[in-house]
Amino acid sequence: MPYIDVDKNLPGIRSLLAFRPETAGPLGELAEILLPDKTGMSPADRELIATYVSHLNDCFYCNHSHGAIVTCYLNGDQELVNAVRRDYKTAPISEKLKSLLQIAGKVQQSGKAVLPEDIENAKRQGATDRDIHDTVLIAAAFCLFNRYVDGLASIAPQDLSSYPLRAQQIVDNGYGNHIFLKPQPTANK
Amino acid sequence: MPYIDVDKNLPGIRSLLAFRPETAGPLGELAEILLPDKTGMSPADRELIATYVSHLNDCFYCNHSHGAIVTCYLNGDQELVNAVRRDYKTAPISEKLKSLLQIAGKVQQSGKAVLPEDIENAKRQGATDRDIHDTVLIAAAFCLFNRYVDGLASIAPQDLSSYPLRAQQIVDNGYGNHIFLKPQPTANK
Repeated sequence: MPYIDVDKNLPGIRSLLAFRPETAGPLGELAEILLPDKTGMSPADRELIATYVSHLNDCFYCNHSHGAIVTCYLNGDQELVNAVRRDYKTAPISEKLKSLLQIAGKVQQSGKAVLPEDIENAKRQGATDRDIHDTVLIAAAFCLFNRYVDGLASIAPQDLSSYPLRAQQIVDNGYGNHIFLKPQPTANK
Repeated sequence: MPYIDVDKNLPGIRSLLAFRPETAGPLGELAEILLPDKTGMSPADRELIATYVSHLNDCFYCNHSHGAIVTCYLNGDQELVNAVRRDYKTAPISEKLKSLLQIAGKVQQSGKAVLPEDIENAKRQGATDRDIHDTVLIAAAFCLFNRYVDGLASIAPQDLSSYPLRAQQIVDNGYGNHIFLKPQPTANK
């Protein structure tokens, strides 16, 4: 039951964006700039960082929303997302991406938890300054999104079948607010 | 020493905004919409929430930048900011603002830490849904800003005399990016 009077037909962050459209603008724009970008890291890599941080923050809605988007980019491979949630160090991903997930995990704890050796390790694995910047900002942004979603007790659909349909809409059309504010597609149709 | 190659003449978040102007846009806009707003809470109240969360996150740059802005709004009363940093429960502020700082402190820990009784308490003290929404989003946003600033080890000037000059610029002109990207004013002039 959400803590404030939002539209009960909208799940998670979408109910909050509709409640306050002024702040929805920059929040949607931030996601749109950071996540589908293809420079250095793929959109799947970026969404995997978002999913991992949301998993660490125990945010059901963001964890499953963004996990479904990674799966969509990977043509249905759910196992990879689950492997990263379990332990990214043993997941079948590049050493560069592992080093960036290490930084993201530190950012989830605190900015100060990121140490020079975390950065040196990432640079050794081929990460550029832009990759490191975007990793820190994606991780920090999901520390915002996760707290926003759960701090106002917005509704997280427990039926996981709705998440892949939404994920496909995001992959196809991006994070523009027109997407956030559209009705949730139903699984049975 | 920043972890990535940013302009060493720009302190804190300003060096990061200049490094990646695309994301600077929505980040500046979010601050501009949330902080100088006068609906329900004053800009000083909003900046006090930002300062308190930055203090809890031990982010020197944001804590002192936003503390100086509160002081500016309060015509130089630094003691109030320090009293809130020490213990907001005994600070000379309204019960409503104390109840919102209680929520902000929970958001700093985790979204899930905010409990129905925190919200009921705030509503009893006169907080509206909009006040509660903005409090959660300001607190969540500073969990982003603090991690961004410290996660990339941006430079936080230790000389506190530069902060009030910057604060006055923000109070006068807002958080538009032209402000972020201008040279830092010097104290000795």
